[in-house]
Amino acid sequence: MKFKNPPVNSLSLEFLTELIISLEKLQNDKTFRGVVLTSDCPGVFSAGLDLMEMCGRNLAHYAEYWKAVQELWLQLYLSNLVLVAAINGASPAAGCLMSLSCDYRVLADNPKHVIGLNETLLGIVAPFWFKDTLVNTIGHRATERALQLGLLFSPAEALQVGMVDQVVPEDQVQSTALSVMAQWMAIPDHARQLTKTMMRKATVDHLIKQRDADIQNFVSFISRDSIQKSLQMYLKNLKQKKS
Amino acid sequence: MKFKNPPVNSLSLEFLTELIISLEKLQNDKTFRGVVLTSDCPGVFSAGLDLMEMCGRNLAHYAEYWKAVQELWLQLYLSNLVLVAAINGASPAAGCLMSLSCDYRVLADNPKHVIGLNETLLGIVAPFWFKDTLVNTIGHRATERALQLGLLFSPAEALQVGMVDQVVPEDQVQSTALSVMAQWMAIPDHARQLTKTMMRKATVDHLIKQRDADIQNFVSFISRDSIQKSLQMYLKNLKQKKS
Amino acid sequence: MKFKNPPVNSLSLEFLTELIISLEKLQNDKTFRGVVLTSDCPGVFSAGLDLMEMCGRNLAHYAEYWKAVQELWLQLYLSNLVLVAAINGASPAAGCLMSLSCDYRVLADNPKHVIGLNETLLGIVAPFWFKDTLVNTIGHRATERALQLGLLFSPAEALQVGMVDQVVPEDQVQSTALSVMAQWMAIPDHARQLTKTMMRKATVDHLIKQRDADIQNFVSFISRDSIQKSLQMYLKNLKQKKS
Repeated sequence: MKFKNPPVNSLSLEFLTELIISLEKLQNDKTFRGVVLTSDCPGVFSAGLDLMEMCGRNLAHYAEYWKAVQELWLQLYLSNLVLVAAINGASPAAGCLMSLSCDYRVLADNPKHVIGLNETLLGIVAPFWFKDTLVNTIGHRATERALQLGLLFSPAEALQVGMVDQVVPEDQVQSTALSVMAQWMAIPDHARQLTKTMMRKATVDHLIKQRDADIQNFVSFISRDSIQKSLQMYLKNLKQKKS
Repeated sequence: MKFKNPPVNSLSLEFLTELIISLEKLQNDKTFRGVVLTSDCPGVFSAGLDLMEMCGRNLAHYAEYWKAVQELWLQLYLSNLVLVAAINGASPAAGCLMSLSCDYRVLADNPKHVIGLNETLLGIVAPFWFKDTLVNTIGHRATERALQLGLLFSPAEALQVGMVDQVVPEDQVQSTALSVMAQWMAIPDHARQLTKTMMRKATVDHLIKQRDADIQNFVSFISRDSIQKSLQMYLKNLKQKKS
Repeated sequence: MKFKNPPVNSLSLEFLTELIISLEKLQNDKTFRGVVLTSDCPGVFSAGLDLMEMCGRNLAHYAEYWKAVQELWLQLYLSNLVLVAAINGASPAAGCLMSLSCDYRVLADNPKHVIGLNETLLGIVAPFWFKDTLVNTIGHRATERALQLGLLFSPAEALQVGMVDQVVPEDQVQSTALSVMAQWMAIPDHARQLTKTMMRKATVDHLIKQRDADIQNFVSFISRDSIQKSLQMYLKNLKQKKS
């Protein structure tokens, strides 16, 4: 599965919906047992949430958008498929979350390919289920520091802290992901899926139990004047950088 | 305490019962403060559960067997004694669980002495309390990968991931275990036991609260046709290997 | 903030009360965003709880004392301020707890500057919220071993296990703490504080829910004859050492 929403695979509502539908199809098609997630956009795995969807829209739009973000994570995190992330570019914020939701992460060794949940840098807060996913991957203390400082890890740092499982030269990302996939394919599906569910269900249930409250929380947070202003400032700077 | 159920210290119902009674006796005998667990069978610490007890028997037998497996873990994991595992052979599956339930693990440095919860390789699933015990030892992410792939770790890998505390040359396993024991013996028993209970009680309570459901779950899983077939296949292959 | 209760910054009731009031003031004074905690006493960050407050006093005193210990931790662990520990001396027991409650720990590289929760060595048990704080920092397995054995880690060991974040030469502790502080100051306060709360609130709520029971538990434990005797023995040995 190659993400293709140029230039940086931002998770627009449209792109999110497309991803969710594709994942559902693959999951229901019994001829597929595993999927490698990678990017078609040079230098970026996914830039994460699309700030355009979170800026200057109405409350109903924010709610619809957030529900789709939740849905993507729910699909990924408990997928019956083996998911291997072949991370061939930067993956900040929700781009990082998508990687963390896979079963294995291979990162291309390029200092520009940073990875992390950097929400605080934008003045916003990663939701609790982003946090839970990171704690499950790198533990409580490393998460505490990474989330508060909004750290983006270089490949060497990401490997060291456990954010990814392997760092390989850029031209070997896809082939490594495929051999990892072969290793996971060797395990009987049924036993592997039950084991995955046993490991991850509590974390998923945590969100499901308060899904609506989480949407309300996002909507009221993102629609605050102060947050809207800081997002608009950030977007403006981004545009100036480009031009 | 030297496990002696040749050739591979399989946990037959009889052997399990013997272990449980011995542990109870030691625990109630105030002259004992600690026990080193090791194997009398060359090359194997314990091969884990006895597939013969899980194949072609009736439901009542499966239930009785599983209750004994639970009982052994409950005895070990919250034992008032200091338990040091001197792992002088391979310890897959429940053999690994016994090691994980001790207070400290010394592994003999021999590439054949692999250790891990490899249930998925047999098409079965490690119970949640095996999983909890492993998470408490090596953390969530490493457990997720190890359990899904049914990984058996070499001594170097086991040390790296935290599955064991020390790897030493084969002829030093017993002496190392004894000096570790001396270190633990230097701590006042009462304070150490209360601390151990504080660390492990929640995990034990997790099983105790649903002990019967866990037995029912095992019985209905293991008695499925598909599982019985795959176990019989596995046993057949095992016999052919030997001859 | 420089601890100054010579000779070893023992947490007497008076000193505790002073610390709590100072922290409250700093927290409410909006001109302060972060505080470096360090010691004015050579060779000791803080020796922890003051055994004089726990020996030969009445039950009401023990209860008052314990409530103050809880209060200090509650203040530190969820502080809105960025707290950096510049650990320029030994920090056993509650001295270690204060360090663990900060956001970042810099330890001076001196083999005498040991750090750890060594309660079992005195025949007492670290309370569950000391344990929770340590588990959040170094994980379950390392905590299990450290707490049961009452381990005091050397700087190299403390770094290795994750008890501190950085070890630097003694004359660079303060300057390193200040540059760490600058890094944390670069993050928008509001987002950082919400993130910190998200990470730590469950642990704090664990104590708040059973605060009175925890006080009762301490009072009845510490007033036991056997505990009083072993504390008096310990104090006597300490005095003999000094003279």
